[in-house]
Amino acid sequence: MSSPQQRINAVKQHLTPAQVHAQAVDPVAAMKEERAKAAFNVRELTYLLDGGEKLTQLKERMMLELERDPLFKMDDIHDISKEELRERTMEKFRSLLHHLQNESVDIFRKRMEVVSMIDPGFWTRFGVHYGLFVGALQSNATPGQLGYWFEKGALSLSGMVGCFAMTELGHGSNVPGLETTATFDEASDQFVIHTPTLTATKWWIGGAAHSATHAAVFAQLIVKGKNYGTKCFIVPLRDPKTYHTLPGINIGDIGKKMGRDGIDNGWIQFTNVRIPRGYMLMKHAKVSRTGAVQEPKLQQLTYGALLQGRVAMVVDSGNVSKKALSIAIRYAAVRRQFSNSKSNVETKLLDYPIHQRRLMPLLAQTFAMLFTGAEMTDMYNNMMSRLENAKPEDKDLDEVLETLKETHSTSAGLKAFCTWNCLNTIEQCRQACGGHGYSAYTGLAGMYQDFAVQCTWEGDNTILTLQAGRYLISSYREAMKGKKLSPGVGYLNNLDVLIGKRCPAKSPEEILNPKIITEAWQVVCANVVKNAALEFEACLSKGLDIDDAYEECSQSRLYAAKLHSYGYLFNRFADRVAKISGDIQTVLLDLCLLYGLYTIEDNAGAFLQYQYFTPEQIEFIRSKTNALCKAVREQAIPLVDSFNLSDFIINSPLGRADGNVYEHYFAQVKRLNPQGEHPYFNRLIKPLIDRNVEATEIEDEEAGLEEEEEDEE
Amino acid sequence: MSSPQQRINAVKQHLTPAQVHAQAVDPVAAMKEERAKAAFNVRELTYLLDGGEKLTQLKERMMLELERDPLFKMDDIHDISKEELRERTMEKFRSLLHHLQNESVDIFRKRMEVVSMIDPGFWTRFGVHYGLFVGALQSNATPGQLGYWFEKGALSLSGMVGCFAMTELGHGSNVPGLETTATFDEASDQFVIHTPTLTATKWWIGGAAHSATHAAVFAQLIVKGKNYGTKCFIVPLRDPKTYHTLPGINIGDIGKKMGRDGIDNGWIQFTNVRIPRGYMLMKHAKVSRTGAVQEPKLQQLTYGALLQGRVAMVVDSGNVSKKALSIAIRYAAVRRQFSNSKSNVETKLLDYPIHQRRLMPLLAQTFAMLFTGAEMTDMYNNMMSRLENAKPEDKDLDEVLETLKETHSTSAGLKAFCTWNCLNTIEQCRQACGGHGYSAYTGLAGMYQDFAVQCTWEGDNTILTLQAGRYLISSYREAMKGKKLSPGVGYLNNLDVLIGKRCPAKSPEEILNPKIITEAWQVVCANVVKNAALEFEACLSKGLDIDDAYEECSQSRLYAAKLHSYGYLFNRFADRVAKISGDIQTVLLDLCLLYGLYTIEDNAGAFLQYQYFTPEQIEFIRSKTNALCKAVREQAIPLVDSFNLSDFIINSPLGRADGNVYEHYFAQVKRLNPQGEHPYFNRLIKPLIDRNVEATEIEDEEAGLEEEEEDEE
Repeated sequence: MSSPQQRINAVKQHLTPAQVHAQAVDPVAAMKEERAKAAFNVRELTYLLDGGEKLTQLKERMMLELERDPLFKMDDIHDISKEELRERTMEKFRSLLHHLQNESVDIFRKRMEVVSMIDPGFWTRFGVHYGLFVGALQSNATPGQLGYWFEKGALSLSGMVGCFAMTELGHGSNVPGLETTATFDEASDQFVIHTPTLTATKWWIGGAAHSATHAAVFAQLIVKGKNYGTKCFIVPLRDPKTYHTLPGINIGDIGKKMGRDGIDNGWIQFTNVRIPRGYMLMKHAKVSRTGAVQEPKLQQLTYGALLQGRVAMVVDSGNVSKKALSIAIRYAAVRRQFSNSKSNVETKLLDYPIHQRRLMPLLAQTFAMLFTGAEMTDMYNNMMSRLENAKPEDKDLDEVLETLKETHSTSAGLKAFCTWNCLNTIEQCRQACGGHGYSAYTGLAGMYQDFAVQCTWEGDNTILTLQAGRYLISSYREAMKGKKLSPGVGYLNNLDVLIGKRCPAKSPEEILNPKIITEAWQVVCANVVKNAALEFEACLSKGLDIDDAYEECSQSRLYAAKLHSYGYLFNRFADRVAKISGDIQTVLLDLCLLYGLYTIEDNAGAFLQYQYFTPEQIEFIRSKTNALCKAVREQAIPLVDSFNLSDFIINSPLGRADGNVYEHYFAQVKRLNPQGEHPYFNRLIKPLIDRNVEATEIEDEEAGLEEEEEDEE
Repeated sequence: MSSPQQRINAVKQHLTPAQVHAQAVDPVAAMKEERAKAAFNVRELTYLLDGGEKLTQLKERMMLELERDPLFKMDDIHDISKEELRERTMEKFRSLLHHLQNESVDIFRKRMEVVSMIDPGFWTRFGVHYGLFVGALQSNATPGQLGYWFEKGALSLSGMVGCFAMTELGHGSNVPGLETTATFDEASDQFVIHTPTLTATKWWIGGAAHSATHAAVFAQLIVKGKNYGTKCFIVPLRDPKTYHTLPGINIGDIGKKMGRDGIDNGWIQFTNVRIPRGYMLMKHAKVSRTGAVQEPKLQQLTYGALLQGRVAMVVDSGNVSKKALSIAIRYAAVRRQFSNSKSNVETKLLDYPIHQRRLMPLLAQTFAMLFTGAEMTDMYNNMMSRLENAKPEDKDLDEVLETLKETHSTSAGLKAFCTWNCLNTIEQCRQACGGHGYSAYTGLAGMYQDFAVQCTWEGDNTILTLQAGRYLISSYREAMKGKKLSPGVGYLNNLDVLIGKRCPAKSPEEILNPKIITEAWQVVCANVVKNAALEFEACLSKGLDIDDAYEECSQSRLYAAKLHSYGYLFNRFADRVAKISGDIQTVLLDLCLLYGLYTIEDNAGAFLQYQYFTPEQIEFIRSKTNALCKAVREQAIPLVDSFNLSDFIINSPLGRADGNVYEHYFAQVKRLNPQGEHPYFNRLIKPLIDRNVEATEIEDEEAGLEEEEEDEE
């Protein structure tokens, strides 16, 4: 029933055996026990993750502001209808506008990061205007145009709300293939925006159904019968005084989605809608009064706008993983299931080696994503400040463009890799919570539904991964021609050494070294990139054109890009760990090694294929992964605590910091589902269970025959 | 713009270039084109999958009956509230009862299979009564008790509706650890059913919230202060005339879930509820009038009841995968995206090698699951008929029990393996549909949400996989002692040959042979099972007890069980293909090889680790997998057609048989989201975008100071 020590304590405290048992399984006590294991300063790790004490305080302030804001009531979010959710989401604009107008862009961005963790639907709806619509203006408008639209209220959201109308019913990732047309009418100095077919209907347009007065519309520019490709036009949709749609505008609601129902995605059809010529955004291409078209000199510079979204999604993947793991790991620290033969107290889930295996590698991966996200953010900010000042005549323009190219493809690969990782983390965490993971209130189901779209929007993950793979192949080919590559793919300048290289470790223990693991990934990546490039070149030799050749070797491209991302994340993690010291370094080094080893184990085929590791070394890695899971498990609760998410942000009774999961869960279920009268007993159940059973069965043949006879009478 | 042939045809038909283009991208024409590629008799394959022409006709009849039943209106299912869904789901009982009373159990089971594909929430709700409650009676009641409850209306659902109250808030998989008590009160000849703690609250009980009058309650049997473990009791919950709860019963609604909201899961607390002694189901354990407890002789025989659910889930995994792939593959056959340099007509998704890689292996896997499900069903039926006639004194009882043991562990491993496969298939199909996969109307999102619970209920997948792994270890150890094992694990009798064996293929092409692939899996499985067993024995040698030793090697157990399932499915597939001939064999052989090769590629680490294949052979397998994807792609639409699911069952505009996806999708979105007045413009948007921007900003300090001065006056 209980240990001798427990029985002694019980006697001292005059407890009954039932009370002793209750104490032994008390989840709050279990959580305290786990928290006491901290072998490092949790607060210091929080500062490290947040980027310093001040940023931690800022996040805490924002979490508190959200928690106390009545508009951000979140615990009933799973029980309200799509219509209520839409309306409530719109209402939150009020709070955010207040902050937007009173704090710097950097601080507001941090705020949006916090918002995205508690209410991704609202984050999207607000982001459609500020990120996408205003972003489209900033990327595509001339300074004069930008001033015009800002004056009209684009920034302050007064008099106008914007949406971003790119995708169409029949066209997603292929932007040059959009069907909507913008035909220049010289007589009136206007563009005619038109939806020529059903598949040209603008589709998935966030904010179109209920929010937007204006749209940034991507359409084929047609001047004097010639098509100049896809450009961006601002098209008024609704009268801001009445919200009635304007002539030629047909808008509808896309309706129910897998998640993020707070955002009002809609469809739009344009029927010969006229806009002034000046509503075409002309930073890059220009159309003159007489219909002369000037094409852009530096089309690449427009790519910058895409990057911000991708970097934000890498950061979001880390943040959402934090939240998912806070729930699953805290629950595992207090949930008990099965007892071994020696004890009547059931074992904590977290003490099962298999449960450690399910969650600890994901915890390690989360740290890898967090450090990668932080570095990507710095890289992006640096690059953008260089890019904003770039002019066609600059001498270092080539270098800027080269960096842009690398950042572009790195961010493509990482957006895909990290959003897939995060989606998988959420689902694994959900399953690790057993049956309760299927309840909406425990939060992981909704998190999955909300997050899933990140694998598709702003570039389908498969297509982005292929782009990253294409960059690896072209980098390889440039390296073969002697070109010095940028750091992220620098290992491809070192093929002579890497191809064929075997692990130099003399004893298995030597493998437990970030340098060896880094080299292991470099060797494997060098091999798979080389293979993909050779396959590509073989396709060219067979006479395929470049695009077809790339398609033909797409599986190898995808594989190369995935492995490259593993190596990339491991390096970011190892670099970060090398820069710190003390107890935090000790725990992070375990996590870093765990990330390295479990990803090697997971991709053992590649390491054996290219013989960097022997089968014996792989066996060692496998057993060491188990050992590291066990080591990390000891610090699991302190590590999750270092994420520093408030109970309000976590919004799941299973993820409660105090461990008091059952009481909070039961209270929430009862509060949201009050007991009362049976809703349909009289209409449906009573006639069913009161019925005369025989009467519902099919009558026998004679009955039919008798009736026939009667008819004959 | 168009090919020379198209232009010639256009001239013949007097079409404009726009019309030519429209014809070239017409999804209906694309679907016809794909359908015309059939290199086998589609109808014959349907018969093969269904188990014969008569069963195909039966399924078609049932699909038609469902489609024409107004209670089974399904196209608006994503837009109705949980409350409406609950009510509508209850209403469907009427239709099903009619069939239940007028057809044989076998035929009714087929009907439920069809129902589960279109309305899994209803299937669950009906299944709770017929599968779980009636199943509990059949497994645990004496013949006399069974007669009593059937007479009361348990079968005909008149006067009573049952639910199955096993899991508790704090207890899921560990049935012996349940806390609810059933204490025998000799004075009154009654049991007192009681919920002693919060965590003992019955939780997740399907049908408890609104449907059930009676529950099969699992509780600790306590007689004269002694605990005899978990037994099953029938406890009345509600007055069937009023549906008011009975004294001592406290029931509430569990509320919103990830999916299957049509089923009214609830929680139940019993507070000293008295039931007659006869309401304990006494087929196995018995309690006499005087409190004498007779323990069961053949506890194992009760396991049979668990098996049916597991087998049904293997079958369901195949069926739901059919539906998911019908949607994703049909959409890929008509959706176009990007064009190569030579054509202005965009390429079908299905023509991209990477899209083939995403979907064709899943198609192959679906066939593997379908054949495995069919064989499992036969195995189960045979075993149950032997089991039902088994008596403790039977001579062949040992053999029956041995078969039961194998079926038990095989079904545990396969339930987990196939439900995970299916959940992954749904999500991959959803992502393969791009943005439209995120719409509720395209069906895959809801399918994911509904299916996800299959990975947890009736045995958490991880725990079931570990059970299967435990059986493999014990089988290995018995084999080492010379025991002849049953067929599923027969390869473990052949370790001398298998351990260390390398692929005998002299040329790579020889690998393309089901016999080689079968052997490959056997070699790898023999190795991983052996490793797991050695690890287990090492733990025993270190002094761990059996349970702890099994826990300690759980990662190896899990790994062994997963690889064993791959091999098991491949064998079922290869066996089936060997038994047929002609064109169908040709296409199924491609699918079977694809299943074999891509799973080997996916687990390449194991095949290289144990050196069955060389790195060069793995490279060959990798490139051959690409080639097989391409080959299978040619027959993809005919293969999906052979699944023979009606548009009603598929219930997704993207999965339309005619390929007319966009028109149906648009029509559905418009129908379910009619255009109308703006729902909250006046309340929320008008004050927001009409506001005086300056006024909402924080006023400067002076303003505050002035007010203070005024206060002082």
